[in-house]
Order: sequence, then structure tokens, then C-alpha cells
Amino acid sequence: MNRSVIVLPLFLHNHRESGDGIMARVNEHYLKLKAGYLFPEIARRLGEYQDGHPDADIIKCGIGDVTEPLPQAVREAMHKAVDEMGTRQGFHGYGPEQGYLWLREKIAGHDFQARHCGIEADEIFVSDGSKCDSANILDILGNDNRIAVCDPGYPVYVDTNVMTGRTGDANHRGEYGGLVYLPMTEANNFTPALPSEPVDVIYLCYPNNPTGMAASRETLEGWVNYARENNALILFDAAYEAFITDPSIPHSIFEIEGARECAIEFRSFSKNAGFTGIRTALTIIPKTLQGKTSSGEHVPLHRLWHRRHTTKFNGVSYITQRGAEAVYSDEGRRQVADLVAFYLENARVLGECLTGQGFRCYGGVNAPYIWLKTPGGMGSWDFFDHLLNKSRILGTPGSGFGASGEGYFRLSAFNSRENIRKAVKRLKQITA
Amino acid sequence: MNRSVIVLPLFLHNHRESGDGIMARVNEHYLKLKAGYLFPEIARRLGEYQDGHPDADIIKCGIGDVTEPLPQAVREAMHKAVDEMGTRQGFHGYGPEQGYLWLREKIAGHDFQARHCGIEADEIFVSDGSKCDSANILDILGNDNRIAVCDPGYPVYVDTNVMTGRTGDANHRGEYGGLVYLPMTEANNFTPALPSEPVDVIYLCYPNNPTGMAASRETLEGWVNYARENNALILFDAAYEAFITDPSIPHSIFEIEGARECAIEFRSFSKNAGFTGIRTALTIIPKTLQGKTSSGEHVPLHRLWHRRHTTKFNGVSYITQRGAEAVYSDEGRRQVADLVAFYLENARVLGECLTGQGFRCYGGVNAPYIWLKTPGGMGSWDFFDHLLNKSRILGTPGSGFGASGEGYFRLSAFNSRENIRKAVKRLKQITA
Repeated sequence: MNRSVIVLPLFLHNHRESGDGIMARVNEHYLKLKAGYLFPEIARRLGEYQDGHPDADIIKCGIGDVTEPLPQAVREAMHKAVDEMGTRQGFHGYGPEQGYLWLREKIAGHDFQARHCGIEADEIFVSDGSKCDSANILDILGNDNRIAVCDPGYPVYVDTNVMTGRTGDANHRGEYGGLVYLPMTEANNFTPALPSEPVDVIYLCYPNNPTGMAASRETLEGWVNYARENNALILFDAAYEAFITDPSIPHSIFEIEGARECAIEFRSFSKNAGFTGIRTALTIIPKTLQGKTSSGEHVPLHRLWHRRHTTKFNGVSYITQRGAEAVYSDEGRRQVADLVAFYLENARVLGECLTGQGFRCYGGVNAPYIWLKTPGGMGSWDFFDHLLNKSRILGTPGSGFGASGEGYFRLSAFNSRENIRKAVKRLKQITA
Repeated sequence: MNRSVIVLPLFLHNHRESGDGIMARVNEHYLKLKAGYLFPEIARRLGEYQDGHPDADIIKCGIGDVTEPLPQAVREAMHKAVDEMGTRQGFHGYGPEQGYLWLREKIAGHDFQARHCGIEADEIFVSDGSKCDSANILDILGNDNRIAVCDPGYPVYVDTNVMTGRTGDANHRGEYGGLVYLPMTEANNFTPALPSEPVDVIYLCYPNNPTGMAASRETLEGWVNYARENNALILFDAAYEAFITDPSIPHSIFEIEGARECAIEFRSFSKNAGFTGIRTALTIIPKTLQGKTSSGEHVPLHRLWHRRHTTKFNGVSYITQRGAEAVYSDEGRRQVADLVAFYLENARVLGECLTGQGFRCYGGVNAPYIWLKTPGGMGSWDFFDHLLNKSRILGTPGSGFGASGEGYFRLSAFNSRENIRKAVKRLKQITA
């Protein structure tokens, strides 16, 4: 039986036995999707391995999920907020859908204005996750836009375009018709070329998931200039900005002149403050950013997103928002910096070991991910199985991030130091 | 200047001064939306009134937002979960997108199996709100379904159909082309007739928002039979089920035989456990529920929603889910029952007063809302202004819920006892 997740269709059509009524029509675009979303599929393979090896001590460097305790400042703020909710005076019901102003002002000040980005609090929308935001943003865009994605890339970008009917079917490489794929490989040092055909929307993620590579100011200037000259919109995913160590690298697309006219940015508290299980993120839409109608009228995207956010979303928990606010206190900032430094040290140790074993490795310096070339032209899923079987280390197959990720593999530095040391020992048993 | 929110177009097209590039195409369906979402508009009018009357002591019975403290059992569980997150062993990162099994099992047992609904834990998807769920459900349905909504109804049902391109433009009554409106008025005792033309999807909300009326078992059986005979899907919003006092009234559509083949249900922790500011809800999709493709193939809606939920959502906070779980402890259930009884007593007091003043009132017995006929044929927004000016009481104009809500007005019983007593005193100054 062919076990590859790439070729199995997701939906088997279970014809009902009886002849009676079958219901509303479904969104058939979902039927174009190949197999499950990457991470559930990894979980499934892991479960299968564990069934066969119930005592195996597996080190999980697959999903980019943080492992270290939630910062103390955040916990203290949340305890206080829980207590407030126990009093009539301190009780908070529905909050503003876009987030409390006291949180948005802290974000605007610390994350943007301190870096000379002219982003105001009312250009920030607090949400429950960057996965949601980067998926939902398509709601406000027309279905006739031509979409460009970097390949490899975060699977949500592609999958949500498929689900909303912006693509055709997938080919044998898993590439969907209608999308413009911008390869990021060793050949171009993981810096995709500007699109050679006109595109309307471009997803960029820097520091990059999965390659762990950061973009220089010049690279980002190139994209902003391209977008402005070609009337394109940049969807900039900055979920990993806290991991930037090189001071010359911009943390926000809004550090680039002209970006307010061509970019939306996504930020998250998941990877810096350890909020993967707490859920807070933000979308920044400058009020100066516009889209157009088919007849050429201009529409501020901020207003459309505001309408979407207030109609289809009801805000983030008050308790959670108080926790997020604490990230900006002096203690919170110190604790978050310590967390980031901890994971980056993991990445350094892991990268050093892999390089020593002869692997070609990228990333890991301005990002918590190491992207390695699989040895001897091994396929990504084959290397996944190899590493799981030989070293009991769980990673992510590069091909899960797109066709150009084939032959690559992602290892996450989100782990305890103890596990990273254990992983290093095991990796010393294998060579590239 | 015409200040009616119904006729002002939402989006003014700000043409840019310079001639340079304008961007991606927008989703033009948003431009069909009339004015803001109802509640932000009420907030705007309130703000305007407060600017003119800064010292006015306004009693807010407008938005259906709870006011009483979060139950102690919930707070204790959340404190414990916050502490857990401070240890490596107890830290929780990404959870299952559909919610932790320990929570879903409690929900399945207490809310469904205890009422003889054969709903299993894996048919439950935990989310951050019923507003989100009832909006997002459209993602998995084809755009060619004919949609029926009760009128008046929760504005999100209509607005999200407009936003996803399932309607034409609005007429002068605010009714969108392509939707089938099912009037609920005094004339039919707020029990809408079955659609006289074929429809594919029907939104039902019981106990009803805004009318406060509950549906008998016979009424629900009528809908399930209709849906099964006409191949229609029922989207059943049960956000207010905890307020049912009449033991003959079903709490779930799945108490009706055959509903597993034709219905999706939405539940919420907002109104029973006071979670409006905490955010937890659920969607129940039976595995036996199917939709079809244009070529007649059958597709389980559960699988489509599972794909949507895992791709576009990343689960609810661990801390929040522990709080939700505590709702099902013995103390939690007692505390929630007390909260519900408290608001229902508010509704009784308010309803008695209004009836005494000569108003024709509905609801308030199995729901936290009172629906009143405005006196002397007064328009809903006029009565809104009248009540705000005369009594400093904030309510919700019936017309905000749909054209058939014109001439009606909603008062919410979510308030402190003190405020309800104050409101009663003020209402005794006015008569119908």
C-alpha cells in the first residue's frame, strides 16, 4: 500500500445506503486538498511508530511548539486578571473585538514606534493566532487576485487559498494550478527571485519558516519596491521576529519606506513569550493601505478587516490579554529575552553538531529552525522515517512545506536543553 | 443629515491623491453591507449621547453581555492551570485544535448524552466563540446553496452570507437579494412558517435571540422533518439553552429524531457560565451528517469542518479550557445554575413591570431577553432614542435584527439586580 501522504486524496465519498435526502452542497474546493495538514500527518506517523515501539524515548523537534514554562510576569498578570473576573467591579464581558487599547498601545510603542515604524494602536488588531489571521485575511480579498507563495512555506498559506477557490487542482508535485510558486533553495541562497509574471498578493515570512533564513534590509526593500511598482500586496508573516540576532536585519516590514502602502504584517506571542497554548497574535493593517474594486475604486483594507474582525470574531480573553500586556513590562521583556536566548542556544548546539556530522545546514541564527539538506539525495519523508528509526528524533519533512522543500528537512530548536543534548548524542551516531 | 444607520453605505471610497499603484482587488461583497454591525452602532450612538450628557447614569440593557462575576469553580480551575503553565511538566503548548478530549467528553456526557442525544466527544469541536463558528461554518458550504434566515435574527447570520457573496444587494428594507426571510412576528406568534420555496440551509436559534421565545418539541420536529424531506441543512444556534425553564422544551436539536442527518448545533459558554470575556464555544457536527457535490457525491460535513478547524484555527487556550471543564464539576454546575436563575429573575421583574405599564412583551421566561412591541407604532430606532432620553435605558432596536423586527425592541436581563430595580423605577414613568 502506498503510504505517501502526498498522493492520497483526503475525502472518500461515503455513499449513503438509503436513498433519502442529501443535504446542502459543500464547498468543493476542499476536495482539491491533498491529505491532511502537515502536522496532523506527522502526529499520525508518530503514533504509528509509537504503537510499534511503545517504550521509545522520542525527541520531538517536529512541530514548532515551545516547551519552556510561561514567563512569570505573564502568569502573575493572568492570576490577577482571574481574580478581577471574580468581582462585579473587575468583571470584563465582551471586550473590543480588535483588543483592549491598553494592549494595542503597548504593542504599537514597543514593537513598532521604538523601531521607527509609524504604526498606531488603531492599526493593530489583536486575535487568537497568526494561523487564523493569515488564513482569514483572504476573506477581504477578491478571488481574482493572482497569488504568489514562497516554496517551501507555511502550509496554511497554500491550503487556505485552495479552500477559498483561488487555485486549480494539484499536480503530481503537489503544486496547485493558478498559484505562483517562488522557489527558495540552496541554488538561490533561499532568497526567492522577484516574480517574473504579474502577481497581486505575495506571502513573505521572515525570519523564514521553514528555512530559518532572515531577510536583509536590501531584500525587503526589493520586495516593497516590487510591490509598489506592480500594485501588489505583501502579506508579511513576522511570527519569528524575536529571534533576530543580527542588528542590521529589520524586525518589521514597516521599517521599510513605502511598506505602509503595500503591506499587512502578522505578529504572534506564540514563539517569543511561549503562547502556543495561550493564543494571542496580531494583524497590522496601516490605514494608508488600499485595495481596489473591479471598477477601479479604492477601498481602505483597514476598514474591510475591521468589518470582518468585528462581525466574525469576538475578541481575545481579557485574562489572556492581561498576560500579553505583561510581556511588555520590564520583567516580562527580560523573561522573554531569556526564553528566546535559550532556544537560540539550542539551535546553535544543534547546528554545530549537524555541521560537524557533515550535514549542510541553514538557519538557526536569526530563527529557531535549522533547515538541512538531506544526505545523498534522500527524499524528505524517507529522511523523516530514517531519523525517527535511527535516532528517535522527530523532525519535519521539507516536502511538507512545498515541492521545493523536497530533499530538505526542518529541525526545531524548541526543546529542553536536556533533550537537545540527548539529540546531539544520537546525531553523532549518524553522518550525512 | 440623515442619521439612520440603515441607509448609509459603509465604505467611502477614498481616492488616493497620487496616481501610483493601487493594490490587490478587494472582496467586493463587503461593499454591499449596510452600515456597521448592529452593536458597534449602538455603542456609537451611546457615545454620542454621553458626550452630550456626561453625567447621565445609563442602564445598559442593550448588548446581551453578562455582568456577574465568573463562577468560583471556573476561577479556581484557571488559577491552577496558570500555575501548571509555570512548570516544564505542566506546560501545555499547542493543544488539539478541536479541544482537549477531557473537555469534549464532559460536554458530550453532560450536555448531550444525559439528555439522550447520541452525540460523541469526537463530534464536538471546541472554539473561541459561537459568533466565529456560526460565521465560519459557511466556509465548508457551497456558494450556490439557498439560505433561509428567521427575521428578526442574529445579524451575524445575514452579514456573513453577504460577505461571502451568497446574496445580492439590499433593498430599502435592508433585505438582501437571494436570501429567504422567514418572518417571526406577533402575527404568527413568533413561530415562522416553513419555507414556501425550496431552501438548502436554514438558520434556527432557540431559545431565540432576539425574541426570547423558545421552540416546542413539535416545532423542532416540524423543522427536522422539513429538512429531511427537502434535503436541507439546519444550523441550530443553542447559545441560550441554559435558560430553558419549561421541562417540555428540548435543549438540543439532537433531542429530535433524525436531526443527526440534517443538523449542526452551536453551543456557547458565554451566557450560562459568564464567558463573554473568556471565549469558549462549541460546534457539534454528527458524523452521520452529509453534504453533496454538484455531481451528487456525498461528503461528510464532519470531515470538511475538521479540515477547516485544523487548518484555520489553533485551539482554545489550555487555561480557558480548564475553566470550561470546571463548569461541569458539581460546584460549577451549581454556580452556573445560580447565575442563570439570577438573570431569569431579572427578566421576570423587568417583564412584569413592562406588562404593567401596558407594553406587549414576549420572551423572558426561557430566555434572558424581553421582546416588546413599541408603543403607538413607533419605529425601533425612535424608541431606542426615546428610551435613552426619557429613561436613560439602553436597549436594542428590533429593526437591527431584520426588517420584521421593525416596531419591536429588545431588552436584555443581563444586569445587576440593582440596575434592574432602577430600570423598573424609571420605566414606571413611561407608558406604552
